[in-house]
Amino acid sequence: MLSLERKGIADSSINLAEYIDHTLLLPMVTPEQIDQGCEIALRYGFPTFCVPPCYVPQVVERLHGSPVKVSTVVGFPLGTTTAEAKLYEAQLAVEQGCRELDVRINLAWLKAGELDRLHAEIAQLVEETGVCVKAILETALLTEEEKKLAGEICIDAGAAFLMTSTGWMGGATLADVQLLWQLSRGKVGVKASGGIRTVAQAEAMIQAGASRIGTSWGLELMQELRARGTP
Amino acid sequence: MLSLERKGIADSSINLAEYIDHTLLLPMVTPEQIDQGCEIALRYGFPTFCVPPCYVPQVVERLHGSPVKVSTVVGFPLGTTTAEAKLYEAQLAVEQGCRELDVRINLAWLKAGELDRLHAEIAQLVEETGVCVKAILETALLTEEEKKLAGEICIDAGAAFLMTSTGWMGGATLADVQLLWQLSRGKVGVKASGGIRTVAQAEAMIQAGASRIGTSWGLELMQELRARGTP
Repeated sequence: MLSLERKGIADSSINLAEYIDHTLLLPMVTPEQIDQGCEIALRYGFPTFCVPPCYVPQVVERLHGSPVKVSTVVGFPLGTTTAEAKLYEAQLAVEQGCRELDVRINLAWLKAGELDRLHAEIAQLVEETGVCVKAILETALLTEEEKKLAGEICIDAGAAFLMTSTGWMGGATLADVQLLWQLSRGKVGVKASGGIRTVAQAEAMIQAGASRIGTSWGLELMQELRARGTP
Repeated sequence: MLSLERKGIADSSINLAEYIDHTLLLPMVTPEQIDQGCEIALRYGFPTFCVPPCYVPQVVERLHGSPVKVSTVVGFPLGTTTAEAKLYEAQLAVEQGCRELDVRINLAWLKAGELDRLHAEIAQLVEETGVCVKAILETALLTEEEKKLAGEICIDAGAAFLMTSTGWMGGATLADVQLLWQLSRGKVGVKASGGIRTVAQAEAMIQAGASRIGTSWGLELMQELRARGTP
């Protein structure tokens, strides 16, 4: 088990809010729920608010001038759209004001051994958009060897974060976060996502190496912290 | 219960193969599995083979000159990408040789009452691509009123089929297929999809009004028919 000390962070110094990518990606989320999500992200000072692509303009307008960055997803959640379509989606989002992209990598290419295509897709997104790209590996679908291979390819292609899961096909595990943290060698961040709904889970993920926590339960986590008496 | 007679089809005249949109959409499907899917579609004479967008070129090449049409998905499975991205995905697929598009409608717009946006997205896809557009309602997420409203909007926008489900958020039910068939008034087709794995299920969907069955179990259905002694 990796300790926070090993990461150079003392337990007492954690401000959980600084790790939260607040996320609302359900297919029927309404404009009102998106506005409420903006309020929550602003109130607690989360680094980002991650919304479906169709809501990027609304959130960019609402969060304008604030430190909360707008984030969206690309090729989500299956990853088997074309490289061209992913680039189009990404560029449109960035033109609209999005600053971070959670991109589902194409596991069909990984399984098929088409590693150049897997690499090229991420490298092109990084190069053409110039923003923070988080590569979603969907670790629950992969063998240990595949996780390592995919992680190394994404780091080499310029991803800023390795991210565990979309939340649609299994969630983050401590073991996977530890593995991605080992792969990262401090060069990229690790984002744990999928099924994280309690402070204990989030803290364990951070101890395991996560520098971001993707969750739709940002408000509940902050309320749980408050009930605990932590500021 | 609607009968086949009511649809003007005698029980004995059903050739189940003519209803099957053979489908392989799992996120790690390999080129070899896609080739096997082509062989199955060709062998049984299925109307279409539906694959992830990244596999359209491979399938177009393999099925060239055959009666099996290539189909893919757009905005799949969440439907909350932008109208622009859906159009881009659709146009690229059609340029590559795809003849049918299973398009996930944006239920966020439906829930928000943004019905013009919901309509415009489908109408634009129909107009700009000129191919058969099947509108996926994701009925498991909708109230009865919402199913009717979404179905009517999609018919008005020019969809060729109303389709029940992506398979990721609940599957087709007989009641939903009957409802869509009633809405269709013979003007559009109905595609039942999600969880259909047996001949009995498929036949019941057809009796309820389905003119297409979307399934990954095309081979198993044909083997079951053969074991039954039906040609």
